[in-house]
Amino acid sequence: MCLRFQVELMRDGNMIEITSLQNPKIKQALLLWERKEREKTKLFLIEGYRELSRASQGGQPIKWLFFCRDFFLGENEENLIHQINQSGAEIFSCAKQVFQKLSYRDRPDGLLAVAPQTHLSLSAFADKLNRNPFLIVAEAIEKPGNLGTILRSADASGVDGVIICDRCTDIHNPNVVRSSVGTLFTVPIVESKSEDVIHWLKAKGIAIVAATPHAQKEYTEVNLKGSVAIVVGTEQIGLTEKWMNQADIQVRIPMHGVADSLNVATATTLLLYEVLRQRK
Amino acid sequence: MCLRFQVELMRDGNMIEITSLQNPKIKQALLLWERKEREKTKLFLIEGYRELSRASQGGQPIKWLFFCRDFFLGENEENLIHQINQSGAEIFSCAKQVFQKLSYRDRPDGLLAVAPQTHLSLSAFADKLNRNPFLIVAEAIEKPGNLGTILRSADASGVDGVIICDRCTDIHNPNVVRSSVGTLFTVPIVESKSEDVIHWLKAKGIAIVAATPHAQKEYTEVNLKGSVAIVVGTEQIGLTEKWMNQADIQVRIPMHGVADSLNVATATTLLLYEVLRQRK
Repeated sequence: MCLRFQVELMRDGNMIEITSLQNPKIKQALLLWERKEREKTKLFLIEGYRELSRASQGGQPIKWLFFCRDFFLGENEENLIHQINQSGAEIFSCAKQVFQKLSYRDRPDGLLAVAPQTHLSLSAFADKLNRNPFLIVAEAIEKPGNLGTILRSADASGVDGVIICDRCTDIHNPNVVRSSVGTLFTVPIVESKSEDVIHWLKAKGIAIVAATPHAQKEYTEVNLKGSVAIVVGTEQIGLTEKWMNQADIQVRIPMHGVADSLNVATATTLLLYEVLRQRK
Repeated sequence: MCLRFQVELMRDGNMIEITSLQNPKIKQALLLWERKEREKTKLFLIEGYRELSRASQGGQPIKWLFFCRDFFLGENEENLIHQINQSGAEIFSCAKQVFQKLSYRDRPDGLLAVAPQTHLSLSAFADKLNRNPFLIVAEAIEKPGNLGTILRSADASGVDGVIICDRCTDIHNPNVVRSSVGTLFTVPIVESKSEDVIHWLKAKGIAIVAATPHAQKEYTEVNLKGSVAIVVGTEQIGLTEKWMNQADIQVRIPMHGVADSLNVATATTLLLYEVLRQRK
């Protein structure tokens, strides 16, 4: 333990209280706001009780857990800290002003962790699939909030996994963690190149379902009961031609107003729940 | 025209070019980022070609239109400027660094306006309703992005209007304008108290439809073909008891994962499109 930094042993055990922003672990955590640092270190931030509970539930390893009791909102935080500590994480109590600086929320709830990024390969993912796969492919989504919301809907609709192609948003962006409400840790996620994924889907006989305003049939009028991959594209331009040309099923979402498209996470969710409705 | 401020006549007419951030109209526009100023002046900002086109289409009056040709992305900007000018707005060409400061976007497209807020009363709205109303009631939504996305889906699903109760987010927040992609100006919006709206819906015989995890039937299993108001609550706690107790139809959105709810705009859209599917 380095005494150059303002640390002190806590009475209730071997826990260190961090009282200075100069603490190297705090400095490291703060840097992880930046994508460049996340890519360099292969670490990322997980903030919040709900998000950390789901990380723990999903088997996400945790390196350091920072907490500050002054911000706790519930009664189960101590159990979660204990559980994360048992899983091998180092835990640190922080002074209020240190935690406040660390948090990226308006209303922090006193829990924030640094965790190693994990990545699942397409082949490892493929090995675990059941016989009638239900997948999402997200191509180059730009906004972390949209990607997180897609993951939240992916969890809710029970998809077998989300495949992210030609990534644009970093899936370890703190706003993905947040808007996914921690489902980032419970939904299997693969990152891969479009070409490889198209080849794999075709080989597996999984139908590529693409939404386009030019499709003849509405999404509620086509059969989505078989193996399907719902494929969605960027906020600005939708799916690229390389995907649209490979689509086995094209569907249209009816638009009755002045706008020509829905928000991408919203449109994705409509398609996911239509699969659920038909498969029921 | 005040020569204290760095303005100059442009060669192509009586248009003023603003080259200084000290220009009082620029200063006023910059203040409108703040809710307090919007409430004081009853003005708000509309940025972007798409948003301003829809504002124009929806009959939204414009007070001042600022533009900067250096940022134009398309070819129709001049037409839109002309059209907005014809409708009575004052127009101002801005120097690049002035417009950059004015814009709240990463990639400005060279158009930003100051406009008077307009408000529609429940009774004026009621007068225009058709015989089988299809409405959304949004109770105390907190995030501008969610409210904007709800408006975008409201436009797409062709609802007769959106009633905002006990408002939390300011509907004139720049992020509502943006995430609604300008549908804020084409969907009729009423702001009112929950009590008044419940009373009015009951008197009109419009069924209050509320989503709750405790409902027995899924949203695809109940009849939504009649007059309906889809009622949705805050991101954190959902609908309050005053609405839940008054619900004529309670529905459940199936949840197959670890999370217990969908994003509020996403859940709203599922319900809206289920009404569309059934009414088809």
